[in-house]
Amino acid sequence: MQQSYGRVTDQIIKELVEIVGKSNIVTDRDNMESYSHDESPHAGKHFPEVVVKPEDTISVAKILALASKNKVPVTPRGAGTGLSGGCIPVYGGILLSLERMNRIIEIDRENFTATVEPGVTLSEICSKVEEQGLYYPLYPGEMTATIGGNVATNAGGMNAVKYGVTRHNILGLEAVLPNGEVIKTGGGYVKSSTGYDLTQLIAGSEGTLAVITKIILKLTTKPVKREVLFAPFNSLQDAIDTVPEILRLKMTPTGIEFMERRIIEIVEKYLDREIPYPQYDAFLMIIMDGDSEDEIHEYFVNVEEICKQHGATEALVPGSERAKRRLLDAREKFYHAIKRYAPMELVDVVVPRSKIPGFVRRVKEISAEHGIPIVAYGHAGDGNVHLHPVCDNISKEEFDKRLPLVLGDIYRAGVSFGGAISGEHGIGIDKKPYLAIQIDAPLLAVMKKIKQSFDPDNILNPGKIFDL
Amino acid sequence: MQQSYGRVTDQIIKELVEIVGKSNIVTDRDNMESYSHDESPHAGKHFPEVVVKPEDTISVAKILALASKNKVPVTPRGAGTGLSGGCIPVYGGILLSLERMNRIIEIDRENFTATVEPGVTLSEICSKVEEQGLYYPLYPGEMTATIGGNVATNAGGMNAVKYGVTRHNILGLEAVLPNGEVIKTGGGYVKSSTGYDLTQLIAGSEGTLAVITKIILKLTTKPVKREVLFAPFNSLQDAIDTVPEILRLKMTPTGIEFMERRIIEIVEKYLDREIPYPQYDAFLMIIMDGDSEDEIHEYFVNVEEICKQHGATEALVPGSERAKRRLLDAREKFYHAIKRYAPMELVDVVVPRSKIPGFVRRVKEISAEHGIPIVAYGHAGDGNVHLHPVCDNISKEEFDKRLPLVLGDIYRAGVSFGGAISGEHGIGIDKKPYLAIQIDAPLLAVMKKIKQSFDPDNILNPGKIFDL
Repeated sequence: MQQSYGRVTDQIIKELVEIVGKSNIVTDRDNMESYSHDESPHAGKHFPEVVVKPEDTISVAKILALASKNKVPVTPRGAGTGLSGGCIPVYGGILLSLERMNRIIEIDRENFTATVEPGVTLSEICSKVEEQGLYYPLYPGEMTATIGGNVATNAGGMNAVKYGVTRHNILGLEAVLPNGEVIKTGGGYVKSSTGYDLTQLIAGSEGTLAVITKIILKLTTKPVKREVLFAPFNSLQDAIDTVPEILRLKMTPTGIEFMERRIIEIVEKYLDREIPYPQYDAFLMIIMDGDSEDEIHEYFVNVEEICKQHGATEALVPGSERAKRRLLDAREKFYHAIKRYAPMELVDVVVPRSKIPGFVRRVKEISAEHGIPIVAYGHAGDGNVHLHPVCDNISKEEFDKRLPLVLGDIYRAGVSFGGAISGEHGIGIDKKPYLAIQIDAPLLAVMKKIKQSFDPDNILNPGKIFDL
Repeated sequence: MQQSYGRVTDQIIKELVEIVGKSNIVTDRDNMESYSHDESPHAGKHFPEVVVKPEDTISVAKILALASKNKVPVTPRGAGTGLSGGCIPVYGGILLSLERMNRIIEIDRENFTATVEPGVTLSEICSKVEEQGLYYPLYPGEMTATIGGNVATNAGGMNAVKYGVTRHNILGLEAVLPNGEVIKTGGGYVKSSTGYDLTQLIAGSEGTLAVITKIILKLTTKPVKREVLFAPFNSLQDAIDTVPEILRLKMTPTGIEFMERRIIEIVEKYLDREIPYPQYDAFLMIIMDGDSEDEIHEYFVNVEEICKQHGATEALVPGSERAKRRLLDAREKFYHAIKRYAPMELVDVVVPRSKIPGFVRRVKEISAEHGIPIVAYGHAGDGNVHLHPVCDNISKEEFDKRLPLVLGDIYRAGVSFGGAISGEHGIGIDKKPYLAIQIDAPLLAVMKKIKQSFDPDNILNPGKIFDL
């Protein structure tokens, strides 16, 4: 569909000023730079025509009604920490920043729920609910991200083995449709069989169906202790083979991470950290929450036993809080370390978790075929593999030329192993060219019809996930 | 929308015979009775024009393409154990029975998943996955139900506190669209951010969007022990007040059930069971899974302490397997007991769990206002309240006259407490007149547009959830 949009005229600016006030609008290009990109290494920059910062749902509704009337594209944005270009205003128009809708409306200590606005950061949610003796258990890795962005991309992270992903921890939404109508979905309860579950449809739709203006989060209680076990293996296959056995133990770990030697070396170099066991090729990090050190210790005795049956001659459980923090911190900084190491791309394919070794072996072949090194690590407990093709042996120009071929091969491999193109970052604009590898024509046609039923003029975050 | 459907002609029958074979078609009315109703007390009977029993996806696809071409309504059906009339062919047409699609295709011991056809019973799934050392943790209460029906209604049940509801335990689907196209959604992984989540949209859509032909279930490990604690309280408020405190303990119970005196009396009478503590008005039953009796015992010591702080002078943990089984069994038979007691209706409203006492108090007022006794029990841990208006004091005719007014008042009360009309049974045809109490015009309009985008001719399970 060739899209022809209305431009942001002086009259529209005037009406936007009436809605949000002059101080909450940015029209000069110099102050728009930070709204023109996200953290994706290859999505580039696109400037909006205007940045608008509403402070409540009614303002969002008015902005969308105005945009709808004038067929002006609207791109919703949280903190801009996304990794696939999902909040970049590729068609210009209105950049709808939710940064001022950053209130925690209610923390319900009886029902273990929090009602929040989309612009609250994950960091603030976690600290405020913990003050109330409750816990929001997800850790997608970037605490400055907003919860609205987390819901829009269905963010995942390290704790998914135990707690699932964002969609499993939201109970209801308030959202504004492209025409300016406000809908409320779900509520403060887990069970519901009352019509279609629009909470789950809007979650993960990357801002293409509606603008989320309130979120009801499901909370839990905070575990007393968190401990980590770090085990080295001779091969990734050996490491991954332990995972189903670990998951058959009676306690469910919070997360199981895997990493290969190469990422460890990069982290050691760029974060000035020394990580144990230099002679091994692959590693598991098992993160366990529990009530007491004793309980976790007993669990780790069993985990270590399983690891040793699969070739780990030793395993490390840091004795001090500081050593533990350093180990977890090193894992959390993988992405930052690799960003400093070299120009790179990032992949977040998910496969059934037993397929990780086969998939990573195929990725190594792809790496050799294209002459592009690919670093692998990720979430062994849920099959979510992070791959970084890195530019450390050829020119950036050559890298950028080969990259689409490498990515195409990686995504085809992921899908051939029964996986999905994006486990947690979303499609955005970066993965749009590859979507058809996984989503066949009938399924894509259904998604497009759903998009059209919400947004007949395609004004809401156009150009993301797929083109109409 | 005034609906005009094509009839099932001889030519259509001939083509259906070609698809599934003569022995898998029922055309004589005498053999159709069991396909004309479900377990709903008030949904009544509607006969289809033909019953068709395909054995594979390709046959389902051909049947739907044929129906689509001829604008004949198609009603998918599992075991017919539904409680809201969702599988009754109200417009006649083709009754698509999935009873022969009853294979367990794969149990994946590495990835803890099972791929099953929709016609497998819950009972068979549970026993087969347990043979493989795995566990499907939901217990919606009716083990002869098919998994396809469970997914279509997003069935809930007693174990939802720990394990969520059906939608939280499915990872992917194969489904046939009304036009006969086959789509595959999700896969053998928990994380995905690859386009709209159609698995979660089709789950709970009561067979109105697509016919489910395969389901990937998420499995877990089976707990070693299950124990029950039964505690009596002076009031429902006292009982419910303990729930958040119980949930703040470090272990998560499998389920927390509440019941009032009246249902206990009915169960005692109709199941010939004696249930302890005749002098109390309300009861909690806490169901706990764990690794060992010791672990659960320690947990129950804490639970009992909390109960006693809220007026329970004592608490019972059955000492023998037999006594425990009898207690759980009594709870499971509430619905059967009340069905034998008197003509009745059933309600499955869900409210935020702290609102249960206020909601039930309001229900008592409604009961008094209409002169219709209402029995209450349900899932205290997740806010899902079962109410039975019973006909034990007036004529059936008078009961049936007052019932819609009673139900309207109950649903309005549930929604006013922040709840939903159906927590686990679905809307079907029974609750359709009340849907607008919860789902306002903009939200309903979105649902209708989604329905139309899947099913432009409205041939798939028409007349369910809402009318177009």
